[in-house]
Amino acid sequence: MDKNEEKQREEEREQVVSPWEVSSSGKIDYDKLIDKFGCQRLDQSLVDRVQRLTGRPPHVFLRRGVFFAHRDLNDILDAYEKGEKFYLYTGRGPSSEALHLGHLVPFMFTKYLQDAFKVPLVIQLTDDEKCMWKNLSVEESQRLARENAKDIIACGFDVTKTFIFSDFDYVGGAFYKNMVKVAKCVTYNKVVGIFGFTGEDHIGKVSFPPVQAVPSFPSSFPHLFSGKDHLRCLIPCAIDQDPYFRMTRDVAPRIGYHKPALIESSFFPALQGETGKMSASDPNSALYVTDSAKAIKNKINKYAFSGGQESVELHRKLGANLEVDIPVKYLSFFLEDDAELEHIKKEYGAGGMLTGEVKQRLAQVLTELVERHQVARAAVTDEMVDAFMAVRPLPNMFD
Amino acid sequence: MDKNEEKQREEEREQVVSPWEVSSSGKIDYDKLIDKFGCQRLDQSLVDRVQRLTGRPPHVFLRRGVFFAHRDLNDILDAYEKGEKFYLYTGRGPSSEALHLGHLVPFMFTKYLQDAFKVPLVIQLTDDEKCMWKNLSVEESQRLARENAKDIIACGFDVTKTFIFSDFDYVGGAFYKNMVKVAKCVTYNKVVGIFGFTGEDHIGKVSFPPVQAVPSFPSSFPHLFSGKDHLRCLIPCAIDQDPYFRMTRDVAPRIGYHKPALIESSFFPALQGETGKMSASDPNSALYVTDSAKAIKNKINKYAFSGGQESVELHRKLGANLEVDIPVKYLSFFLEDDAELEHIKKEYGAGGMLTGEVKQRLAQVLTELVERHQVARAAVTDEMVDAFMAVRPLPNMFD
Repeated sequence: MDKNEEKQREEEREQVVSPWEVSSSGKIDYDKLIDKFGCQRLDQSLVDRVQRLTGRPPHVFLRRGVFFAHRDLNDILDAYEKGEKFYLYTGRGPSSEALHLGHLVPFMFTKYLQDAFKVPLVIQLTDDEKCMWKNLSVEESQRLARENAKDIIACGFDVTKTFIFSDFDYVGGAFYKNMVKVAKCVTYNKVVGIFGFTGEDHIGKVSFPPVQAVPSFPSSFPHLFSGKDHLRCLIPCAIDQDPYFRMTRDVAPRIGYHKPALIESSFFPALQGETGKMSASDPNSALYVTDSAKAIKNKINKYAFSGGQESVELHRKLGANLEVDIPVKYLSFFLEDDAELEHIKKEYGAGGMLTGEVKQRLAQVLTELVERHQVARAAVTDEMVDAFMAVRPLPNMFD
Repeated sequence: MDKNEEKQREEEREQVVSPWEVSSSGKIDYDKLIDKFGCQRLDQSLVDRVQRLTGRPPHVFLRRGVFFAHRDLNDILDAYEKGEKFYLYTGRGPSSEALHLGHLVPFMFTKYLQDAFKVPLVIQLTDDEKCMWKNLSVEESQRLARENAKDIIACGFDVTKTFIFSDFDYVGGAFYKNMVKVAKCVTYNKVVGIFGFTGEDHIGKVSFPPVQAVPSFPSSFPHLFSGKDHLRCLIPCAIDQDPYFRMTRDVAPRIGYHKPALIESSFFPALQGETGKMSASDPNSALYVTDSAKAIKNKINKYAFSGGQESVELHRKLGANLEVDIPVKYLSFFLEDDAELEHIKKEYGAGGMLTGEVKQRLAQVLTELVERHQVARAAVTDEMVDAFMAVRPLPNMFD
């Protein structure tokens, strides 16, 4: 191993972003990720274009760069401008009972996209994946999928435009045929290169990438898109899912389909700081949609990494380091009022505001968000879940 | 590489038996295969036991050792003796329009087993496999599956006890859940050891073994075997399919199922001689169920490898070498009359009968078989195919 290789390996060790692991010795370097994955930066001109085409202000996640990268979003918008609709595809691996705030990010954004563009949406619950990776039983994975579906529905999706499916329920037929078509085009060496599997990994892992790939193709959903084989697909997701869709985009033209377009988010950081994403497996690293107001307040006060100074005196003098401050980071995700956010950043950064005050405001914002979610989720009945998951046509999905 | 290794490699080169290749520099050494695969020889006492339990003479393929190996057949018979039924599972990879005689062997034998034991049967058409291995389109694989189903139905299966399914149609639901359960238990290294895949093989190949494995488990067929999760399964197949079921038997107890039992046949040899099995890709190596009486006669006369001597004089003096003679081999598969077969072997082996006479008798026997098949197949309607392939309960399948 020569010096250059050593340096490269060192850098790779510092920052790991895959569908199963996100970790970094410092802050995630998203520019480096864009270079490594080969996607494009989502710049202001694209944000402006989305605003112009939809006739509504861009979502806070868009105007503040939470969704920061894309692949072929321009093509989707070009087609949309000419009157050609598309569909949205996103998903979730149901590995835990309750979602944390990071899990809500893609769904909140997808809801905005659905409303703004007035397009249909498919949501994949990869219960098969979690059964295989987390060693859950089939039954437990399916139960979690249905529980998670309730949280997703609580985000406000339009039942006349949305199909939620679990792989264990839905794999088969046209979907399975597309899985086989994709699998034929991808060598084992290729998936090892993309996903880093080893010979001791089970073959379920090797078999899974086509399952996540094929919702990108409208023909996988004959009950929705029959006769619309050339409908384009836009995938909102966190950037750790990019490897699946790099593979999908590589295969798509070889089997006669459009490459799906992507719009990709950064990670919602853990309370302890921005070196990875919130982890469902460490309850103190995350705020859950099931947390009480008191729990939210306590976790923020106790765990949220502060950029404030050690003493009030020093803080008044130097101000907070906003670059590493988690309360400000969280507010930039969830405080919708741009003016107030700017005010807080200015005051806090200059030492006029203290960490305690910022944390208090954050607790208010998140409590409101979480309580709204809890009310919405409590209203989700089993019949509503059945309706979202029913395999049936959605006649008005393009209206 | 030391001498021993070299010798072993040499031997392996001489004889290759896998689901995709059967070749040998000489005659296939079936004893060696039993040792290598670790299955058991099907001896006379087992044949006698089958006769006793079913109350009918054993099938010609059984009493003449065409089905020569097994795994746990004794256990199936023990349970059957105590009044516990089982089900049969066999299959076909639909890669060609017309079946040849070798393809009929497992189906003729399975029909006998179904009649003799009065048990249900599932027949898997692996159109997904052929789509992936032979690079056929999905549509073409499915078309061939349906054409082949007609030939299979023409073998006389009982529609009240038989379910024929194509993977492209049927994979999903309970079947897919079992695929995931199996896949979780098998590492990539393991399938490489069993099937010899390389890194340049596509992942469809790596994903396929669970598809062929799970029909061994009754829970893969809830419309047939709901509530009968402990029903045993017996698989009649050619021995080249053993690797799939070695893997399946290894996994079965880990996911709470019985190991399937197997009853395994030797290969129906090519006209040119016994160094492999009949190949669908060389039309002159095989007799097809679509061949005319004239074609059968011509192929036998022109290509069937003879153990007779070079001249009539020499033949009268030395007799035929029955060990390498294809007409006699074919007669031992399809001439049901034991006494006549013995007579032919004796006379031909002693030089009293000439090759031409044996070939003439063989042409008669096979023409009769093929013409019977052609009449039966012509009577198979699309409605019959639909009935065999319908996903519905079979209320009298155990009667």
